[in-house]
Amino acid sequence: MSVRLHKLINRPEDLVDEMLEGFCAAYSDIVRCGGDRLLLRARAKAPGKVGLVMGGGSGHEPAMLGWVGEGLLDVNVVGELFAAPGPEQMLAGIRAADNGGGVLICVSHHAGDRLNAELALDLCEAEGLDNVDMVLLYDDISSAPKGREPERRGTAGLFFVWKLLGAFCEGDAALASAKALAEKVRDNTRSLAVSLSSCASPISGEVMFEMADGEMEIGMGLHGEMGMGRRKALSADATVDLMLPPLLEDLTYQAGDEVLVLLNNSGSLTLMELFILYRRAAAKLAEAGISVYRSWIGPYATTQEMAGFALSLCRVDAQMKALWDAPANGAYMKQSLGGLD
Amino acid sequence: MSVRLHKLINRPEDLVDEMLEGFCAAYSDIVRCGGDRLLLRARAKAPGKVGLVMGGGSGHEPAMLGWVGEGLLDVNVVGELFAAPGPEQMLAGIRAADNGGGVLICVSHHAGDRLNAELALDLCEAEGLDNVDMVLLYDDISSAPKGREPERRGTAGLFFVWKLLGAFCEGDAALASAKALAEKVRDNTRSLAVSLSSCASPISGEVMFEMADGEMEIGMGLHGEMGMGRRKALSADATVDLMLPPLLEDLTYQAGDEVLVLLNNSGSLTLMELFILYRRAAAKLAEAGISVYRSWIGPYATTQEMAGFALSLCRVDAQMKALWDAPANGAYMKQSLGGLD
Repeated sequence: MSVRLHKLINRPEDLVDEMLEGFCAAYSDIVRCGGDRLLLRARAKAPGKVGLVMGGGSGHEPAMLGWVGEGLLDVNVVGELFAAPGPEQMLAGIRAADNGGGVLICVSHHAGDRLNAELALDLCEAEGLDNVDMVLLYDDISSAPKGREPERRGTAGLFFVWKLLGAFCEGDAALASAKALAEKVRDNTRSLAVSLSSCASPISGEVMFEMADGEMEIGMGLHGEMGMGRRKALSADATVDLMLPPLLEDLTYQAGDEVLVLLNNSGSLTLMELFILYRRAAAKLAEAGISVYRSWIGPYATTQEMAGFALSLCRVDAQMKALWDAPANGAYMKQSLGGLD
Repeated sequence: MSVRLHKLINRPEDLVDEMLEGFCAAYSDIVRCGGDRLLLRARAKAPGKVGLVMGGGSGHEPAMLGWVGEGLLDVNVVGELFAAPGPEQMLAGIRAADNGGGVLICVSHHAGDRLNAELALDLCEAEGLDNVDMVLLYDDISSAPKGREPERRGTAGLFFVWKLLGAFCEGDAALASAKALAEKVRDNTRSLAVSLSSCASPISGEVMFEMADGEMEIGMGLHGEMGMGRRKALSADATVDLMLPPLLEDLTYQAGDEVLVLLNNSGSLTLMELFILYRRAAAKLAEAGISVYRSWIGPYATTQEMAGFALSLCRVDAQMKALWDAPANGAYMKQSLGGLD
């Protein structure tokens, strides 16, 4: 069992607050901590623009802390470890994101997150906050079959939504068009994950699920949710060769398409391994006539120190490419290089 | 023993070449692969500027691949796993970095890297390449006592040198002043590392060194070199409280100083842990009257999936702060946010 049980923390009950305090101290030029465990931009958006709020459980860092900032999200409502923030906390986040242009609640589809966001919407209605809407986001093809996409989980590929939607909402978009853009990115995004090890909970200090060294599971969720069953771990090339066909088939990618590629490190995979995996993915995409517009490789949405990765593809058009290249300044997403070009 | 032995690679003998191929494919807007396992900028620097070349073993990704790019290094000479590139390969790198303004060879101090760089300098002399110099870089206070700094190892804190020196050499610096700047950054930088687990070699598939779960070693080097001995693993706060006093004492930091802080993830520590560690470090620095100018937290120089981190401090003056904030575009170091300010 290749899991490290001792974590460098203090009291487990202080985990989330101390993490937030450290994060806000480290990146005070980008973010600030509000009450109610809200993470806010250091400088609020200009009035009249759509506010973007996203809530989620902790334990997946840099998600979602790293995507709050200019060109990205306005508010992250931080939950307990692997647990969605409650409706009152979400309501506080919605208020904080309200710049007078409406607020879009972005929900990474998990049962608790969805329920709490819906309850928060009810609270908004009861309080007369009427320019608030919600979008349900999902990308993991292993969590429900094609044709039942709205039952799927939200995983690392939602990164494309945060980046593109964040850029879109720096402009003068209306709430309805922001929601439509989020749905467009979601509907063009597919992810599939692979895991090679379990990890330990920093609260209980116990292993989160059992997994033997030398095993592999394709399709595992961000919290160890079951995928397509265990198998003997494969080589890098054989792993990519298993993952890419179902991804391409699911969205009926066609020759000539352009995609963004994200190879997300679940925790303790090495970058060396990820670059070798990328090499095969790029070659196989080229064979299929699909060109890669931009690619990102690194830890974006982690599950503690789990060894594994997710391959995410997002089919892009001219609008989406421009949004990807637009400036962003989150602690863990920086885009735009003015001064060098 | 909390080590994952199965790695997602193909044939071990293809490890370095496949990694480089994948890296260059993923970041073709930033870098390109030359022959001789050279990693080059996609667009070479303007003629007449000092070229910066750095050689080192693989296995520490994103170091050094991630620091080649505009505002950073010109050439990375990529060695085998944990092994310095040879003198002929270094010579090829020096030639590739030569823009007519001289070349500075930056050596992260380890015996093999130093020897091969010195031999490469001899080759340069024999070939009449006379505007080439070398700077020896080190930062790890556990590897030799105060007063014997030039015997120390180069570790994660050299990141400050790459960033500041890279920015400096985008200007019209002469070779001698580039070397002086590198020495100035080095002499103001100190690092100390902590490890909580071993890791596996992707070549042999074997554990690199023995370390029991629940143990900790302060001062371990980037390849598992011995530090200050094993002890029972501590809490986050107690760990920082042990590390910071020797760091501050070593450089005789004084109240009123300003520092850059790097918390480098050795591999599989979680960001959650690193933010909690940062919280304590920031509080203790504030107590000592030292202010943090900027801080970076993440995997910069790794040792495969080893669990651990290094705390690095770099005392800065006005020149160094401006160099830190100057634009940079490496795959794993992006600075400057034109368009958002």
